[in-house]
Amino acid sequence: MTATPTPADKFTFGLWTVGWQARDPFGDPTRAPIDPVVTVHRLADLGAYGVTFHDEDLIPFGSDDTSRDDHIKRFRAALDETGLAVPMVTTNLFTHPVFKDGGFTSNDRTVRRYALRKVMRNMDLAAELGAQTYVFWGGREGSETDAAKDVRAALDRYREGLDMLAQYSIDRGYGLRFAVEPKPNEPRGDILLPTVGHALAFISTLEHSDMVGVNPEVGHEQMSNLNFVHAISQALWQGKLFHIDLNGQHGPKFDQDLVFGHGDLLSAFFLVDLLENGGPGGAPAYEGPRHFDYKPMRTEDLDGVWASAAANMRTYLLLKERAAAFRADPEVQAAMTASKVGELAVPTLGEGESYEALLADASAYESFDADAVASRGYGFGRLDQLAVEHVLGAR
Amino acid sequence: MTATPTPADKFTFGLWTVGWQARDPFGDPTRAPIDPVVTVHRLADLGAYGVTFHDEDLIPFGSDDTSRDDHIKRFRAALDETGLAVPMVTTNLFTHPVFKDGGFTSNDRTVRRYALRKVMRNMDLAAELGAQTYVFWGGREGSETDAAKDVRAALDRYREGLDMLAQYSIDRGYGLRFAVEPKPNEPRGDILLPTVGHALAFISTLEHSDMVGVNPEVGHEQMSNLNFVHAISQALWQGKLFHIDLNGQHGPKFDQDLVFGHGDLLSAFFLVDLLENGGPGGAPAYEGPRHFDYKPMRTEDLDGVWASAAANMRTYLLLKERAAAFRADPEVQAAMTASKVGELAVPTLGEGESYEALLADASAYESFDADAVASRGYGFGRLDQLAVEHVLGAR
Amino acid sequence: MTATPTPADKFTFGLWTVGWQARDPFGDPTRAPIDPVVTVHRLADLGAYGVTFHDEDLIPFGSDDTSRDDHIKRFRAALDETGLAVPMVTTNLFTHPVFKDGGFTSNDRTVRRYALRKVMRNMDLAAELGAQTYVFWGGREGSETDAAKDVRAALDRYREGLDMLAQYSIDRGYGLRFAVEPKPNEPRGDILLPTVGHALAFISTLEHSDMVGVNPEVGHEQMSNLNFVHAISQALWQGKLFHIDLNGQHGPKFDQDLVFGHGDLLSAFFLVDLLENGGPGGAPAYEGPRHFDYKPMRTEDLDGVWASAAANMRTYLLLKERAAAFRADPEVQAAMTASKVGELAVPTLGEGESYEALLADASAYESFDADAVASRGYGFGRLDQLAVEHVLGAR
Amino acid sequence: MTATPTPADKFTFGLWTVGWQARDPFGDPTRAPIDPVVTVHRLADLGAYGVTFHDEDLIPFGSDDTSRDDHIKRFRAALDETGLAVPMVTTNLFTHPVFKDGGFTSNDRTVRRYALRKVMRNMDLAAELGAQTYVFWGGREGSETDAAKDVRAALDRYREGLDMLAQYSIDRGYGLRFAVEPKPNEPRGDILLPTVGHALAFISTLEHSDMVGVNPEVGHEQMSNLNFVHAISQALWQGKLFHIDLNGQHGPKFDQDLVFGHGDLLSAFFLVDLLENGGPGGAPAYEGPRHFDYKPMRTEDLDGVWASAAANMRTYLLLKERAAAFRADPEVQAAMTASKVGELAVPTLGEGESYEALLADASAYESFDADAVASRGYGFGRLDQLAVEHVLGAR
Repeated sequence: MTATPTPADKFTFGLWTVGWQARDPFGDPTRAPIDPVVTVHRLADLGAYGVTFHDEDLIPFGSDDTSRDDHIKRFRAALDETGLAVPMVTTNLFTHPVFKDGGFTSNDRTVRRYALRKVMRNMDLAAELGAQTYVFWGGREGSETDAAKDVRAALDRYREGLDMLAQYSIDRGYGLRFAVEPKPNEPRGDILLPTVGHALAFISTLEHSDMVGVNPEVGHEQMSNLNFVHAISQALWQGKLFHIDLNGQHGPKFDQDLVFGHGDLLSAFFLVDLLENGGPGGAPAYEGPRHFDYKPMRTEDLDGVWASAAANMRTYLLLKERAAAFRADPEVQAAMTASKVGELAVPTLGEGESYEALLADASAYESFDADAVASRGYGFGRLDQLAVEHVLGAR
Repeated sequence: MTATPTPADKFTFGLWTVGWQARDPFGDPTRAPIDPVVTVHRLADLGAYGVTFHDEDLIPFGSDDTSRDDHIKRFRAALDETGLAVPMVTTNLFTHPVFKDGGFTSNDRTVRRYALRKVMRNMDLAAELGAQTYVFWGGREGSETDAAKDVRAALDRYREGLDMLAQYSIDRGYGLRFAVEPKPNEPRGDILLPTVGHALAFISTLEHSDMVGVNPEVGHEQMSNLNFVHAISQALWQGKLFHIDLNGQHGPKFDQDLVFGHGDLLSAFFLVDLLENGGPGGAPAYEGPRHFDYKPMRTEDLDGVWASAAANMRTYLLLKERAAAFRADPEVQAAMTASKVGELAVPTLGEGESYEALLADASAYESFDADAVASRGYGFGRLDQLAVEHVLGAR
Repeated sequence: MTATPTPADKFTFGLWTVGWQARDPFGDPTRAPIDPVVTVHRLADLGAYGVTFHDEDLIPFGSDDTSRDDHIKRFRAALDETGLAVPMVTTNLFTHPVFKDGGFTSNDRTVRRYALRKVMRNMDLAAELGAQTYVFWGGREGSETDAAKDVRAALDRYREGLDMLAQYSIDRGYGLRFAVEPKPNEPRGDILLPTVGHALAFISTLEHSDMVGVNPEVGHEQMSNLNFVHAISQALWQGKLFHIDLNGQHGPKFDQDLVFGHGDLLSAFFLVDLLENGGPGGAPAYEGPRHFDYKPMRTEDLDGVWASAAANMRTYLLLKERAAAFRADPEVQAAMTASKVGELAVPTLGEGESYEALLADASAYESFDADAVASRGYGFGRLDQLAVEHVLGAR
Repeated sequence: MTATPTPADKFTFGLWTVGWQARDPFGDPTRAPIDPVVTVHRLADLGAYGVTFHDEDLIPFGSDDTSRDDHIKRFRAALDETGLAVPMVTTNLFTHPVFKDGGFTSNDRTVRRYALRKVMRNMDLAAELGAQTYVFWGGREGSETDAAKDVRAALDRYREGLDMLAQYSIDRGYGLRFAVEPKPNEPRGDILLPTVGHALAFISTLEHSDMVGVNPEVGHEQMSNLNFVHAISQALWQGKLFHIDLNGQHGPKFDQDLVFGHGDLLSAFFLVDLLENGGPGGAPAYEGPRHFDYKPMRTEDLDGVWASAAANMRTYLLLKERAAAFRADPEVQAAMTASKVGELAVPTLGEGESYEALLADASAYESFDADAVASRGYGFGRLDQLAVEHVLGAR
């Protein structure tokens, strides 16, 4: 079996994932905290490439400078011992009650100022640890009632914050790229920038929009029952897939953060196929970390935690194998041709053809036999079944 | 009662709305077709400002030129008699089987060429009738399986098509603005540009992006259980609310196209408040047509059809009254102040303040008392209840 | 304004509702605990009829007998002082980690035995305090993966538990009625008995099914985007609406527990109309407590908590006024006649008519003019609009 | 490869499935009708066991008796030639406009009478063709507004109709079992008996409830984002799984009717495991037809139609193979033991143990160490991953 992870696979995990203590809205924690140093070593043993964190995953809220330095020092030592990278860092702007109405978009200006400072401080650390990507998940930026939030003003403040922080990264030479992570709801009733689309649209308005992309999470887009593969395709198409969060979800309900592939398995297959093979495109579409942002189930003990971490990577690699076989299968290739999948890459206008030329082309309209063309089948069902059979390892 | 519509209210209806024959996936039509000339007269009688249409609503597919001219002539006469405007026109790229895999993004290039020609022909008519807005709803642009559609190539083709058509409008001096209408699914399993966000993001990549905005529909965004008022706010914030489709929907299910307000009534209230009052912003946010894109229930006869058309307008006007009263209520204003709603419009940085200055402001971080600030209540519940009571006409 | 609550309105609140400390999956508590004695007094001041609780709301987990008695004594004193009733009591089988795989249906038999004992102990207290209803919300009875739970065995155990506890109540002379509360998910990925329907079906199999009904919660049914008024109608029709939990929800997402009416306002109106007027039925359909199971928003302080409690009651009473006006409106009554709403109460067969007689009735089939009957409109849109206008206080 | 269907696999198809002409809410048909005789032969060639139909699939609405007899005669001949069975028949009470407000629960009593007659006539044919099961899908029994439908009266009429028809089947000696098919919405805004649970609950109230069960459809339950395997488990547990409709769906949206397994593949695996192996139960749980109620995609031609029919059966058989391997895998068995899956089949009370004995068992409560028990992991993640790997054919 080749499905054994190595650092070359670029698998990364957040400290908060395996470290989740399994406290939920109706229940107390079922697991003890894990020392980040232990996590680093265990992830390295399992074949991971790197580890990521929020400031508070590493340094408890309210730590003094001495304590902070000590936490960082121990963490760096573990990184050095294991060779684990820190490709991404992010900020916790959601746990402390001060952020109950958001960080960058709180109605309270003092909270907004505090949030910016908190981010800047952690960006310093991110740069120090060599991170390339800084993620912004605005989980508290939102509202429960439209009466209480001026959304246009909120977007102004969101932009103000990101513009300032981008300038800070540039001026300090940190070389960070920003990745905005969309989510439709939870913990707020409605969160701003709820989908990959809304985030991409917002990013297009930023002063330094070139250094800002998205960090889509499988389950977040699926909480709106949207097609995640379509969303990633659009993000790639706009050159904005800066990072990705892999996990599983069973449609519109609370944020489940299941192991990757343990939700919509077919979609997971097509996602891996897109990242690794470019889908029908033929070339790898994404080179960055494969980051798992999941939660080990609350029923599990520590052994179950590490087993679940391994399960994420193993499922990804199995799907990668199946996607490779799918693309290599001559029947699939023939079916794709029959379905004209590749023809969509051919421009609709001919080379140099103007709309005047199109208007003059009677075959395009005046003599076009719509009924005849309509009668042709596309053979999409055949392709779909071939994919299912490859997922099932049945070809 | 002031809730009587006049043309000054800018209410418009699609020919296909009242004209829907009530054929659904499981049932045959329950109503006869309505002559567009009759529709124009009835809408005018009811107080509407204008009427909109797809090419095929007016001119049956496959009509020859003589027949086409005749349909247009009769329609123009009715417009002249009634004074009804045609502020928006759009294309049917979804009914005929030839479009079963889409128009602009069909895998079949000949279909794409045909689609472009069909649009151009109808743009000529739109310009002739004085329309300002041309809507693009790509209901068939999508897929049922990720195996069969190269989404990045599809977005290339979508862009190619819109870029060419924009150039056509410019060159011909049509002065049209384009409005892309998002929808997540139905009739395709997944439609490209599924939400207002994805559409705005796509638009930012267009050659003539300045002349392209969105035409969001209440029910389409709510089919993904997204907050429509938030979506409209973002569209306004990006200067892209070029048109709007008003109706009702009960969450994620098939596209219901209910009468406006007959779905999520609180959201309808906040929407009208946003359009008419700018929400907390204080100034009207949208000046364009209030376009109803709904379907009279399949159980109704012709009397029911016209009653439902009137119901849309009346509900809008009643909500407008309540929104005005809400904004004028001193208790609401006091509650907004207590909730710091206006404070969000104040930049987070002071005038001319740099991030260096923010870093130097110890009150922002080093001496910021997070626990004390966290203990303050925002009073959002109070505002929400005041809104509910205004909706209920109880204040 | 008559919308001022009195005990005659039978409004009740759970201790855990106003007492929620606003800890959520991503955030720490924003409010301090409230002494149950304070809650009793505040609710009484606000006009409530009664208070309800889980064992652990009153008596912290692990309390010894002395401490337990003391908690109960203080609580009873507050009840005596205020006159507040305790019409319903329930058990917490979800917070402690021991219940992480459920109570009655945990795979671990020792947990199941412990759960039964915990319930029995609290039933003793419920009876002592004069409760009529004992609620069973099996929030942890479920699974995240179908591989790990034998659902049929789980239903056996669920039934075993309820059968035993029913016998216990009977034998002890407690006179309690049981009410099962359905929920589709959260905190488990999928919860057993996910809807009112599944719970009613399960109840029909119980040994003492006559003493077991349902306790439907607005938001729980709406998390599956099901029509709550339909569900309550079916529960009433089966004689099983033993209790009800009122709150608000915005469709399929995490459990929001908003103030009643602050989600789907039209549905809240029709619900109140059903409970108070029997809908079109003409007689009150439900006599029990109007129990609010909601959570004050996390952004609120203590003042906001009590304001939100009052808002629930006030919204209910305002909707009750509007429902009364709706039923009294002659135009509504005429529209109902036109829509044949009452004709549905007329049996399809005539009095004493057999199917043989129906077969012999040529007017029913052989000479039935389907097309003619099909052409009649039902006028449902008119009724819907009248309801909306009554909700808006516009008639 | 053993995944080749034979009649022993009991695969059946509705005439309306492969015969769907692909007319949808926004588009005209893309395929011609198929002669039922052709369908019978093609299904037989593909290895199916039987065929099912609505009256109108075989006999167009309004056919006279001669024409009717002719249709039946040709169909019977095809059945005789191929050996195909007709295990199930059902009635079309939804296509003709006369049923726009329902059949059994239309507000119009004459429609209800007509509907009963239409069913009786088709039951005669069902019996004549040897069907064992008669399905009732009440797709039009519902409403778009709560103002227009007295749901309790509707349930009275629904019951009246089913009681009468059951008596008719008994008296005529037809030996039919009835199967009610739930669906939450589409074509009505809300359909009565929206889920398996609501249908089971309703059935418990019928006069001849012993002869009435359910016909759950994968996609219908998933349109409410409910766990279909849980629903089937409850139906089996109540002895009510009389028939089943297999297909695929991508969560809460319009009714997709995809090929089986082409929606939620993991759930399809667990469903096949439940039907074939009884899940963890160890014995086949269902012996009836495996009925595919799906629609070939609208993009497909006739070749695609038959390919999609074959795909349903092949996917089922592949999943059956994987489920068998899953159950036979010693690692799976060991993991199930570790997860105490089988312990849930052990009654919570000991043999002959009363609640008094439970109360006297200090180990159950007084000396129960909740924290110690809580610390044990259930190992559910391990089981889940083993299942995923078996689905992927990776073990």
